[in-house]
Amino acid sequence: MIVTIIGLGLIGGSLAISLKEKGLTTHRIGVDLSAENRQKALALHLIDEASTDLAAAVRRADLVVVAVPMDAMLTVLPQVLDLVEQQVVIDVGSTKSMLLARVAGHTKRGRFVAVHPMAGTEYSGPEAAVSELFDDKTLVICDADQSDADAVTRVEALFSLLNMRIEYLDAAAHDLHTAYVSHISHITSFALALTVLEKEKEEQQIFALASGGFASTVRLAKSSPDMWVPIFRQNRVNVLDVLDEHIKQLQHLRQLIDEEDFSAVHQQIRQANLISKILK
Amino acid sequence: MIVTIIGLGLIGGSLAISLKEKGLTTHRIGVDLSAENRQKALALHLIDEASTDLAAAVRRADLVVVAVPMDAMLTVLPQVLDLVEQQVVIDVGSTKSMLLARVAGHTKRGRFVAVHPMAGTEYSGPEAAVSELFDDKTLVICDADQSDADAVTRVEALFSLLNMRIEYLDAAAHDLHTAYVSHISHITSFALALTVLEKEKEEQQIFALASGGFASTVRLAKSSPDMWVPIFRQNRVNVLDVLDEHIKQLQHLRQLIDEEDFSAVHQQIRQANLISKILK
Repeated sequence: MIVTIIGLGLIGGSLAISLKEKGLTTHRIGVDLSAENRQKALALHLIDEASTDLAAAVRRADLVVVAVPMDAMLTVLPQVLDLVEQQVVIDVGSTKSMLLARVAGHTKRGRFVAVHPMAGTEYSGPEAAVSELFDDKTLVICDADQSDADAVTRVEALFSLLNMRIEYLDAAAHDLHTAYVSHISHITSFALALTVLEKEKEEQQIFALASGGFASTVRLAKSSPDMWVPIFRQNRVNVLDVLDEHIKQLQHLRQLIDEEDFSAVHQQIRQANLISKILK
Repeated sequence: MIVTIIGLGLIGGSLAISLKEKGLTTHRIGVDLSAENRQKALALHLIDEASTDLAAAVRRADLVVVAVPMDAMLTVLPQVLDLVEQQVVIDVGSTKSMLLARVAGHTKRGRFVAVHPMAGTEYSGPEAAVSELFDDKTLVICDADQSDADAVTRVEALFSLLNMRIEYLDAAAHDLHTAYVSHISHITSFALALTVLEKEKEEQQIFALASGGFASTVRLAKSSPDMWVPIFRQNRVNVLDVLDEHIKQLQHLRQLIDEEDFSAVHQQIRQANLISKILK
């Protein structure tokens, strides 16, 4: 299977590695606007060939993976579908409603399967690509009924072989749930970093005192704005909704601490502890 | 060296393991109000002997470690100092101002060295104790000038042998900086867990979709209220101050997203990214 990967970053690159390692591809063509990224991807053996000819790269492929930031995705995906015959096309994007509206009614809509691998790190670019990023994680397939059955079957088989669990959601539900369990984590992490950078002028003290707990909650604050701003833009309504709830929860805790109602704080923490029943 | 450890939880237990592994103790006496914790600590080989006789356990020790939650600390530490002759006593508490005020002027104040190992996990109890918890972490010694020089020297030597970096702060500065880099992380994590538990009624979706990023930011929400409520109580003023700043940052991001001022969001995220210069 020849795979063309458009966008040689964390997700595109990691997928390129994983497909190769599992013996699922014979040839990987990489397309990226950045010459530096193409060079890096070749040097890191993420791809077998770099191309600047999108049409030829799509034409030669059996599978086309579009792994660009969500703002570019809105233009690149329709472009790719314009070029497609019987190839299967997937995106790997973090928001779906706006994207799927953009390609609704496209004559090649059936060849496209909208997927979101729930996996990532705070790093970006070809050098961030890692083996086994997708192992034991969830792949969400959105609006599967809009895709040709053979294309869905092929995508299911492929990601199952990457050891992913497959879930099915419609685009609206996907965008709602990812606002809860992914987008809000990034916003709180960015805000936490800004808080500490604002309040703690003695950087040496942050460095010396910060333990694993702080590093863990603030880790996502290293994430790329080029990736995340388009996600917040496209999932704005859900993100605002969850953010409102989160600010409300923080204000409630603040009020209880301010009023020294520590038995209520205790109760709130016990409630928060229930998250351990859900997460491992 | 005979070590008496009062409070056989995550920190007391981990210290017991580390001291033994480094060959720094010949005998470890464990004191805990909970018979179950004493039994577990014996079974897990965290201690060599369990005792319910605080006076005898302190009398026989060369080093006394008080590792109880901060509310109990306020009564246990003065009790221990009442029993002390020439032993060295350390706490391992997360807040210092209130505690040090409590023992100021005690005739044995000099035997006490206030330390805070900046290390922990979201788990608690004897079974949470792990080897190498303190390895390559920072130990803060507070108000070292209030302790006898020989006691400070001994504590410095001991924790250096556990491969900890030593920093010196006065109690007020300690409480301020830990509010920034430790206490606030826990509050945001509790609030995030409450947000998701409140908004996301379909627990199966949290479980299926939550990736590493969410798990990382919400990890601390598993932390024990029995440990954290006394910390928030004793460091209330600093915690409220940092919490106000954090809510302000979240409201600012919320406003920018609401107004669709995404170039400003981009700028904020780039600012937040600076945290990676400080943290590894």
